Amino acid sequence: MPEIKVVENILDANDQIAARTRQQLDALGVVALNIMASPGGGKTSVIMQTISALKDEARIGVMEGDVVMIDVEKVAALGVPVTLVNTGGNCHLDANMVSSALPSLPMDALDLLIIENVGNLICPAAFQLGHHVNVVIASVPEGDDKPYKYPAMFRGADVLLLNKIDLMDYIDFRLDYFRHGVEVLNPGVAFFPVSCKTGEGFDAWLDWLRARVAQRSATNEA
Amino acid sequence: MPEIKVVENILDANDQIAARTRQQLDALGVVALNIMASPGGGKTSVIMQTISALKDEARIGVMEGDVVMIDVEKVAALGVPVTLVNTGGNCHLDANMVSSALPSLPMDALDLLIIENVGNLICPAAFQLGHHVNVVIASVPEGDDKPYKYPAMFRGADVLLLNKIDLMDYIDFRLDYFRHGVEVLNPGVAFFPVSCKTGEGFDAWLDWLRARVAQRSATNEA
Repeated sequence: MPEIKVVENILDANDQIAARTRQQLDALGVVALNIMASPGGGKTSVIMQTISALKDEARIGVMEGDVVMIDVEKVAALGVPVTLVNTGGNCHLDANMVSSALPSLPMDALDLLIIENVGNLICPAAFQLGHHVNVVIASVPEGDDKPYKYPAMFRGADVLLLNKIDLMDYIDFRLDYFRHGVEVLNPGVAFFPVSCKTGEGFDAWLDWLRARVAQRSATNEA
Repeated sequence: MPEIKVVENILDANDQIAARTRQQLDALGVVALNIMASPGGGKTSVIMQTISALKDEARIGVMEGDVVMIDVEKVAALGVPVTLVNTGGNCHLDANMVSSALPSLPMDALDLLIIENVGNLICPAAFQLGHHVNVVIASVPEGDDKPYKYPAMFRGADVLLLNKIDLMDYIDFRLDYFRHGVEVLNPGVAFFPVSCKTGEGFDAWLDWLRARVAQRSATNEA
């Protein structure tokens, strides 16, 4: 199976590029989020609401890997810099794509970089990008068994948002079962049930993110 | 980029195995479906309802690639043979996995083989398995922009089910916009809006599938 060796080499090379990106981000004092979810889990909606809430207190830039131009235009309309990553139909972002896209953002004028990964619960989990925080968004209509089916993604999350909780009344979703699956894989992960539609739960996520950005800035100034 | 050559070789080898599987299936008179969807799109629910409706008129076997044991047990409880494909956490089924799993099903006593692929709208589209029909399941809560974001998957569909239409009242889903995206990529694809929860729309899909199985049997007997 010579293919396995090739895959290892690709991951090694990827990690080296990711490490360089991380050094750049740290030197600039930019916190980078890697936003991952299933197709339709609500990545773009979460990103837009997060920007709307925080754009007057933090300088935010966005890198869009899971794109239709409509999304890019929506985000740009919020008045923050956005760049498009050309994934060429690939199933995940890799460190080289992110590194190559950085120069198209005003990196020295940012506090927070939000990277929207490709909609996929499997492949993105295997690729370091140089980011600081893995944000995984699950959503109620996807069902309560997702942590059991996609363990690598849930194990790697630093923050887990459970989106579309406004649909809880219309769907058989056992929150205890979902949380149990998460806790087994990733005990103590920061967990925020939210609804982009009603805004419910968003404040707790925003407070977490504010604290994370402040922590980075403090480290950078020290 | 020597990696590209390797990927080409892998796909070539995959296609050769898929072609052999297809010959085997044709010789046995078995129609094989490749069921693809996002995580939580409703693959297992669609499969279970399809089996419940057709199991007295067709001999059905199931190959589970997107698995938790709970799903396998649920399907097995319907009284049809089920086999588990060990994907090793991979992001798609490939022809070798399917070919290796065939002997664990009673293939000479089946009319219909249902293959549940891994929950992923990208990678499975690139791999022939030897099956006859690509069944793509989209779902209303994923949003109406999915054909625009995942064109390869929607372009390759022979049948498209739009699941969870019972949630249409609670979600901003523009059916016209969704259908337009599909029609541009895949004009005339067989399209069935369904709800696994209410059963709405299921009869049309079942009729399509009955006709497809009958067609295969007729060819095989001729």
